[in-house]
Amino acid sequence: MPMKSYIPYSSESHFPIENLPYGVFSTVDDSTHRIGVAIGDKILDLKYSKNVFDHPLCEVFQQPSLQSLMASNKNTWSQARKSIQSYLSIENRGNLENGVFWDQNEVKMHLPTTIGDFTDFFSSYYHAYNCGSLMTPDKPLADNWKNMPIAYHGRASSIRISGTPVVRPIGQYLKNGQVTFGPTEMLDYELEMAFFVGGSLNSLGEPIPTNKASDHIFGMVLLNDWSSRDIQKWESYFLGPFLSKSFSTTISPWIVTMEALEEFKTDNFKQELTPLKYLLHDIKYNFDINLNASVRDQKSQQTHSICNTNYKYMYWTPLQQIAHHTINGCNLQPGDLLSSGTISGPKEEQRACLTERTRGGRIFVDLGERKLKFFEDGDEVTLSGFCQGNGYRIGFGNCSSQILPANNLA
Amino acid sequence: MPMKSYIPYSSESHFPIENLPYGVFSTVDDSTHRIGVAIGDKILDLKYSKNVFDHPLCEVFQQPSLQSLMASNKNTWSQARKSIQSYLSIENRGNLENGVFWDQNEVKMHLPTTIGDFTDFFSSYYHAYNCGSLMTPDKPLADNWKNMPIAYHGRASSIRISGTPVVRPIGQYLKNGQVTFGPTEMLDYELEMAFFVGGSLNSLGEPIPTNKASDHIFGMVLLNDWSSRDIQKWESYFLGPFLSKSFSTTISPWIVTMEALEEFKTDNFKQELTPLKYLLHDIKYNFDINLNASVRDQKSQQTHSICNTNYKYMYWTPLQQIAHHTINGCNLQPGDLLSSGTISGPKEEQRACLTERTRGGRIFVDLGERKLKFFEDGDEVTLSGFCQGNGYRIGFGNCSSQILPANNLA
Repeated sequence: MPMKSYIPYSSESHFPIENLPYGVFSTVDDSTHRIGVAIGDKILDLKYSKNVFDHPLCEVFQQPSLQSLMASNKNTWSQARKSIQSYLSIENRGNLENGVFWDQNEVKMHLPTTIGDFTDFFSSYYHAYNCGSLMTPDKPLADNWKNMPIAYHGRASSIRISGTPVVRPIGQYLKNGQVTFGPTEMLDYELEMAFFVGGSLNSLGEPIPTNKASDHIFGMVLLNDWSSRDIQKWESYFLGPFLSKSFSTTISPWIVTMEALEEFKTDNFKQELTPLKYLLHDIKYNFDINLNASVRDQKSQQTHSICNTNYKYMYWTPLQQIAHHTINGCNLQPGDLLSSGTISGPKEEQRACLTERTRGGRIFVDLGERKLKFFEDGDEVTLSGFCQGNGYRIGFGNCSSQILPANNLA
Repeated sequence: MPMKSYIPYSSESHFPIENLPYGVFSTVDDSTHRIGVAIGDKILDLKYSKNVFDHPLCEVFQQPSLQSLMASNKNTWSQARKSIQSYLSIENRGNLENGVFWDQNEVKMHLPTTIGDFTDFFSSYYHAYNCGSLMTPDKPLADNWKNMPIAYHGRASSIRISGTPVVRPIGQYLKNGQVTFGPTEMLDYELEMAFFVGGSLNSLGEPIPTNKASDHIFGMVLLNDWSSRDIQKWESYFLGPFLSKSFSTTISPWIVTMEALEEFKTDNFKQELTPLKYLLHDIKYNFDINLNASVRDQKSQQTHSICNTNYKYMYWTPLQQIAHHTINGCNLQPGDLLSSGTISGPKEEQRACLTERTRGGRIFVDLGERKLKFFEDGDEVTLSGFCQGNGYRIGFGNCSSQILPANNLA
């Protein structure tokens, strides 16, 4: 049976009292960045709802970002969740007058914290297999891929919150074998999920083992790893992607905590090769999260689904990702963002980027009126996701961005 | 004729009154991080020397980091330099009593600012050629390399100031064709120079053209891009280096401003291929900086020079690096660090990493008592560099780090 809040919402709401994701927002009257919790279509304003917490939690929630909360620890996260859940529960309906609530559609959302470093993994089996098939069809999965969660460093400065438009990047790439300069002709999305790191983290030189890693995962968001495939192909040899990814990365504004996702744990992906000991763990740390991507065509105003996949297709778990990231002594910091890589499944509609759907641009995705290869200016791409509970959903809301034309550099 | 200060130093000092590099330090009595300027063997403490500047510059120098100064602009940088130069000049010898000075060897140096993003270029012709020769001897330089300043995103959290030891990283790599786990057996350095970005920087979506790029270069440091070659070789396909670089990066503590380097501008490297228009610039933006790397053997206590090279071997200039980095709209932020990549020259002793000297570990560097392939625990690696002026030097001091044994993960 679902729990009940005095804030009303339907059973399809992404933000029931079982969820309680955190975000940072401001309002027209008050441009201060402050922490809120989504409940139904509302936001509980944690800065001005002083009776939610006792000291010292109260101070953590007076901050303009979630940095302090992330930097605290798992017990604090749990305690905060309990306080908020109780505050919003139907038994405490008197708080409707005491608390400060906003409509979600009247606020402006902001990045939840300063992101020190952004790491992008490559951890879905089918994505790696499908991409590999385009490059090396005789051997789609490289030897190193099955031995470790491959990743690269991403650009932190260009991560933006859902709703921020993406300007089509300009750059150089090969076209008919010639070096060409101009707006990318192969603008793609990647459906990913990322987690924010927190807790008392490791010092430089000190690995985090898999059995401590879950203490350091604060919560998850949707992430669109915008990619320019022509730029990527031309620049990547041999140090990896750079400008093909750094022009924009979009995340959803609400961070769903790991406690809210606990119930949706599912079996880990069966790994074909037993990994090295530092990557082993016994506990389940995979999640059943339904994921969707869609595109809204500016001319027709039609929205088309382009992908339905699930987080559970991740081959490497977040615990393995953290253990690998730190095995060399690399220090993580609260607010660092670690992303999954494109989360593709085995079926055609589960291919979670256009490169996979179109076989590198060789075929169309048939959307009826629209034959899609890569995105056009004006397209709005939206990711969404939720876990289906018994009579309620733990949702992530939307991660949405419209594509603007390239700058005129003439 | 050299200028004169009331602080005495020799003509070989790295820090004459013509230099005036900035750093952040604290003292035994006062752990506050504060901004100082190196002069001879001394540091002028800019927090407590209130009579150096008029308002509002004074406030910029009351900060615990150089972030505010970097975020200001070229005119402010120039004005600050003039004030400090005048304050320290022999004509104003009365300031010896007014100013607060420390011995460099009695303070603790810190990172000069929070580094938001760290980018590592691959911009020296000979380094690219030598590395390429090991991998693809028939065609050492890839087609993309001559068309653009190739780069990858580095890890910001593990950048440390000179003097911080480096723990030998652990990880997986191939050994005799087998996946092996343990401390790296191929620990290498890379002699690089990096610049801090500043000024009023570009918004997301807005490129910085080459003719504006010099407004955004605050100053330069030495950078040792520690690298584990066995880990690098195994992990890099196909998203580039990750753990092989993220365990530690060391920078020198004193940021030498571009004004101090102005006099040492030299012709740009002749580019074999005329690059695309967005990468062209007329002005000289290359520098004659003598660079040295040495290793101190812990057992023998002997120091051996292992590289003598020069910054002038950079094929791509910092202006081209900035224009390329932002052509896709990627936003830079004050405090971002952009590094050169290994700066190798055409001669044997100018190869600026051990991989190049040893042909990937196939031959030794003969240091007499020591046959060097890669570094051993206890080795201390030091980079240094200076520009030779007429009777004075503009120096960068040292960038030094000792290697500690790997952690025991048994």
